[in-house]
Amino acid sequence: MEEDNLSLVLHSKGDLRLEQRPIPEPGADEVLLQMHSVGICGSDVHYWLNGRIGDFVLQKPMVLGHEAAGRVVKVGSAVTHLKPGDRVAVEPGVPREMDEFFKSGRYNLSPTIFFCATPPDDGNLCRYYKHNANFCYKLPENVSYEEGALIEPLSVGIHACRRAGVTLGSCVFICGAGPIGLVTLLVAKSMGASQVLISDLSGDRLAKAKELGADFVFPVKREDTPQEMAKRVSGMLGGMPHITIECSGVESSIQTAICATRSGGVVVLVGLGAEMTTVPLVNAAVREVDIRGVFRYCNTWPMAISMLASKRVNVKPLVTHRFPLEQAVQAFETTKQGIGIKVMLKCDKNDQKP
Amino acid sequence: MEEDNLSLVLHSKGDLRLEQRPIPEPGADEVLLQMHSVGICGSDVHYWLNGRIGDFVLQKPMVLGHEAAGRVVKVGSAVTHLKPGDRVAVEPGVPREMDEFFKSGRYNLSPTIFFCATPPDDGNLCRYYKHNANFCYKLPENVSYEEGALIEPLSVGIHACRRAGVTLGSCVFICGAGPIGLVTLLVAKSMGASQVLISDLSGDRLAKAKELGADFVFPVKREDTPQEMAKRVSGMLGGMPHITIECSGVESSIQTAICATRSGGVVVLVGLGAEMTTVPLVNAAVREVDIRGVFRYCNTWPMAISMLASKRVNVKPLVTHRFPLEQAVQAFETTKQGIGIKVMLKCDKNDQKP
Amino acid sequence: MEEDNLSLVLHSKGDLRLEQRPIPEPGADEVLLQMHSVGICGSDVHYWLNGRIGDFVLQKPMVLGHEAAGRVVKVGSAVTHLKPGDRVAVEPGVPREMDEFFKSGRYNLSPTIFFCATPPDDGNLCRYYKHNANFCYKLPENVSYEEGALIEPLSVGIHACRRAGVTLGSCVFICGAGPIGLVTLLVAKSMGASQVLISDLSGDRLAKAKELGADFVFPVKREDTPQEMAKRVSGMLGGMPHITIECSGVESSIQTAICATRSGGVVVLVGLGAEMTTVPLVNAAVREVDIRGVFRYCNTWPMAISMLASKRVNVKPLVTHRFPLEQAVQAFETTKQGIGIKVMLKCDKNDQKP
Amino acid sequence: MEEDNLSLVLHSKGDLRLEQRPIPEPGADEVLLQMHSVGICGSDVHYWLNGRIGDFVLQKPMVLGHEAAGRVVKVGSAVTHLKPGDRVAVEPGVPREMDEFFKSGRYNLSPTIFFCATPPDDGNLCRYYKHNANFCYKLPENVSYEEGALIEPLSVGIHACRRAGVTLGSCVFICGAGPIGLVTLLVAKSMGASQVLISDLSGDRLAKAKELGADFVFPVKREDTPQEMAKRVSGMLGGMPHITIECSGVESSIQTAICATRSGGVVVLVGLGAEMTTVPLVNAAVREVDIRGVFRYCNTWPMAISMLASKRVNVKPLVTHRFPLEQAVQAFETTKQGIGIKVMLKCDKNDQKP
Repeated sequence: MEEDNLSLVLHSKGDLRLEQRPIPEPGADEVLLQMHSVGICGSDVHYWLNGRIGDFVLQKPMVLGHEAAGRVVKVGSAVTHLKPGDRVAVEPGVPREMDEFFKSGRYNLSPTIFFCATPPDDGNLCRYYKHNANFCYKLPENVSYEEGALIEPLSVGIHACRRAGVTLGSCVFICGAGPIGLVTLLVAKSMGASQVLISDLSGDRLAKAKELGADFVFPVKREDTPQEMAKRVSGMLGGMPHITIECSGVESSIQTAICATRSGGVVVLVGLGAEMTTVPLVNAAVREVDIRGVFRYCNTWPMAISMLASKRVNVKPLVTHRFPLEQAVQAFETTKQGIGIKVMLKCDKNDQKP
Repeated sequence: MEEDNLSLVLHSKGDLRLEQRPIPEPGADEVLLQMHSVGICGSDVHYWLNGRIGDFVLQKPMVLGHEAAGRVVKVGSAVTHLKPGDRVAVEPGVPREMDEFFKSGRYNLSPTIFFCATPPDDGNLCRYYKHNANFCYKLPENVSYEEGALIEPLSVGIHACRRAGVTLGSCVFICGAGPIGLVTLLVAKSMGASQVLISDLSGDRLAKAKELGADFVFPVKREDTPQEMAKRVSGMLGGMPHITIECSGVESSIQTAICATRSGGVVVLVGLGAEMTTVPLVNAAVREVDIRGVFRYCNTWPMAISMLASKRVNVKPLVTHRFPLEQAVQAFETTKQGIGIKVMLKCDKNDQKP
Repeated sequence: MEEDNLSLVLHSKGDLRLEQRPIPEPGADEVLLQMHSVGICGSDVHYWLNGRIGDFVLQKPMVLGHEAAGRVVKVGSAVTHLKPGDRVAVEPGVPREMDEFFKSGRYNLSPTIFFCATPPDDGNLCRYYKHNANFCYKLPENVSYEEGALIEPLSVGIHACRRAGVTLGSCVFICGAGPIGLVTLLVAKSMGASQVLISDLSGDRLAKAKELGADFVFPVKREDTPQEMAKRVSGMLGGMPHITIECSGVESSIQTAICATRSGGVVVLVGLGAEMTTVPLVNAAVREVDIRGVFRYCNTWPMAISMLASKRVNVKPLVTHRFPLEQAVQAFETTKQGIGIKVMLKCDKNDQKP
Repeated sequence: MEEDNLSLVLHSKGDLRLEQRPIPEPGADEVLLQMHSVGICGSDVHYWLNGRIGDFVLQKPMVLGHEAAGRVVKVGSAVTHLKPGDRVAVEPGVPREMDEFFKSGRYNLSPTIFFCATPPDDGNLCRYYKHNANFCYKLPENVSYEEGALIEPLSVGIHACRRAGVTLGSCVFICGAGPIGLVTLLVAKSMGASQVLISDLSGDRLAKAKELGADFVFPVKREDTPQEMAKRVSGMLGGMPHITIECSGVESSIQTAICATRSGGVVVLVGLGAEMTTVPLVNAAVREVDIRGVFRYCNTWPMAISMLASKRVNVKPLVTHRFPLEQAVQAFETTKQGIGIKVMLKCDKNDQKP
């Protein structure tokens, strides 16, 4: 193993550096990975630009990156299901305590969970990274590293659609056609949604959504009221949607989501906005429209891998840009400018293929 | 059958009159009931004082009352499960259309549902009233008429607790100790909640809650912030509640409900306040605290009757005042003043017993 | 309207006759339909050959047929959502009573339900047929009559997959590749199953299954033991299936279904065999493999129509034979011989298109 | 700490010995417990008499006992939530791997789980025992050691009632009034069941059931057919039960359970009998009566403790006999003879109180 462990480290708000870090030694339950493909997430850019997200504040230098796949190069003494050479996707959240949340299958809610690139935990935008082996999932031969890295954003869509109860014949309205809106679209269709309408301010994004399978696209104008939008959504779909998945976090969009959803339906909040939000809560309550948030995901990797392996969902078109790790700062600039959908960093000098 | 059908009719905002109405003739699927006991609900008083509740506006004279039990005196030609003499409790909501909501078991959400004393549908504060026989439920001998009438408010509690998922060992916080808060308390305990904490501004109400089985009572002060209240709730319960059932409709109380509830838990909105509400939605979303409203109830009468018959729940202490139908206006004044818990009107001249 | 109401009437076991019946007059809640396409179901053939299915015994002449679509020619006085000319699919089960099952959304379990071609209720293999309008569903222009008729068998698959909890990434084993096994396959894939393995004794049926999207096919041999079969299923799928849907009703196949299913999974029984069945119940119990039956379906037509309209599922390849109503007996012979998959009868003399 | 670690060791079928074992040293995640009260379970006796239960075969000497409570005397280096002196109840099952079952909240199904007194894992009928600290739960002051030990059998009832979906107003039939039938009765009532009918061959057991709150008791005769029994159950309850919980494992009783349960209801199998069982599967399937097994339990200790602390359930009457650990063999003889309900062994020489 070479000595190079080039890592993308955020030192403080705005101060992003490529620097060498020591190659870590895996513990008994861990594996050491040679990173191959790591996607840039909006949250990575947000930490870079703001130094914090909500209560998570950068207080010491942190390696960025949490949408990742790589190759096992070393396994800890207690690891039995992986061996050097295995290609794996990395689930970035690893519960630290066997608390009530973990025991009952909702480990994403465990307050002490480790999570890549959420302060103070380091991410995996680097050459070599160690991770709990139980949260590394072997990729079948017909699933590429990049597909493996994309399981992370896909998981957000899976968790959202699962919390929403998307099923056969569901009529779904997705607010926002950014990367998360688009993966949610892919997942909703895969779970049997018969109609998906997606809205956005940007015509380019809507064109991409159409290309990825949206049944209807809805160009939002800033002056539209929630009531008007709800009416037009219902008109296009031939009835109110059973489910609305809000991916923008914008207050007026959340209001639209509530007004637009059929009685007895569900609004899932994926996008996050201001701490306090003014919403038509009585409208939701008396029509029994449930409001459910999502926090990351849990128990999604195995099903995502099986979906990718069986070619039931195609995430490849989401990758629009690739940069070698050495050009990480340039890659971050690209994401910041909102160009394309997903920017992928290639961390293995000897293999920059998808 | 005598000719007297004294009825309590709301003619317009503030104009409540006792007057004679013709005794109706039951249709094929209907029964004619001699009303016995009818409770006064906050909504009856609200219509009297305001002439409307939200979009429901009084536009012609309407008989009030929807918490009712009576005796069958005549059955329609198609009715087979009831006969004259049967004592029944009345479910006031009767779906008019076999729409998607009805077919899937959520008939309370059917937009065209008939509902006693919701404009323009007449209620049953009268001597004789006809109702769809399928929504009249025979009372066992050991369940009194008043208990039968109280199934209506009890159903609100049942539906709320069911939507909340109250189960064995649930730790429940109820905001508001009015009649609905109190029936919710009774139901939550019956469903296995191990700890119920109830809050209110009024010490008298909290004393009543304590008497009815609340494990903890929490006197609210207007100056308490939601964060402080949440902290104290958690302190009293030895941990955050799994479930919060908000029965006040006050904005700050809804905010408290969200902040106070454990991650992965549920807030149920029973009380209704202003159309637009400002809430810490991000706090709820990232902790996956679900927000669910209730609209009346469905499928509650049979289970309520079986609970009353088996003495698993005791609603009798809720009745604090009784008036003969002839003194209905005085009874409404009593409810308006917030004295006692439940005021019961006795509609049968010859039997004014509970 | 012409006077011809040619109808296929089963007079007694083995005695199938084409004869004229009076054209019925729709009641207030009913519509009169000119039947267009009606599929032949295994149960129709079973009544013809045996005069009974379990406790349902033919005691007077009965019109066969319950997989049907037609055109509205007359509407009852209370019908508002349909008008003459509308093309509709017919849900053959119509609850007669508003009992606990109907009120809670499981009307298929209502013991007094009307059901086409289940004694003593007449079916719709005829020219003109009246039906409760609430159980006639308007077809969009892009859904053909035959697709409309196929919603009935599709509904069996939908109900089975829904009871099974098929969702994104489910690994599903279907026992039996007859018409019901095949629609279950189509539905399971549409609901997000990543891998579906289907078994049958017949190579022809398996070839059809492969064509319709099965990921794996498994040719059963009579001498295979349930344990061996379970092992091979697991081997082909790379792990035990989460869900097994048993469509054959054969005892050894039910045993295989239980042994093959992953701990915590579900076996759904669609095929029905002998009254008493010997099964490895302890194996199921200690691995928490749930065993769930299905009785017909409920609440499936709207979602099926939306799936067909959005082209999310393609049922057209299921129709392998067509006969005009006048050749119904010949059509029944074809089904009896097990040739092809679905035989469709064309009831409209002037329009025999799909 | 004294050197005495008297332990009850099963050497082989029929060969039960009290002998000294070394006091173990807790690992980083473990605590060392001074055992206080340990109940004798039917499975302990079964191992003693048969040397095996199903596939679990005793192959080397094993300490018996898994219904246990004790006092922490030493904590491992990584343990933060317990300290010496804490009184705890022991959950005997500890998952060894972070597999799909554990991650999704059903760790009881993990095939490699550690479980006290299931070969080859040692139990806790001894003076000193070490256990994973995450599966030791602190008892509040008002919950006794014996109540703590009884959480284990109580958990079987909780898991069964939870899998059954017992809720407000449920009408429940329990087959078998042995210790597990009785705890299931207690739990069902606590979860809101309005009517519980319990059956047994033994009049003494039924008398105890009546005392513990059964609404109806049903003395079974060996010659009763399942159909007759089902009819009488329905007659006594005034309708078929929603839920039947079978605790005997006897084939005819399982048949009765299926026939007796209301359409759309649930049969839970707790008692285990012969490997192959003949049951009226078609009857269950066409009435959508689900059949669900239970394997031990998961996520029950916290809710059980909260039920005991709030006095919502009273398990104390279940303890009918107590013996000091030194008289363990005599205690096992008592259980074997079926005298009383629960025999408790007192492992702390200096504190033999409840």
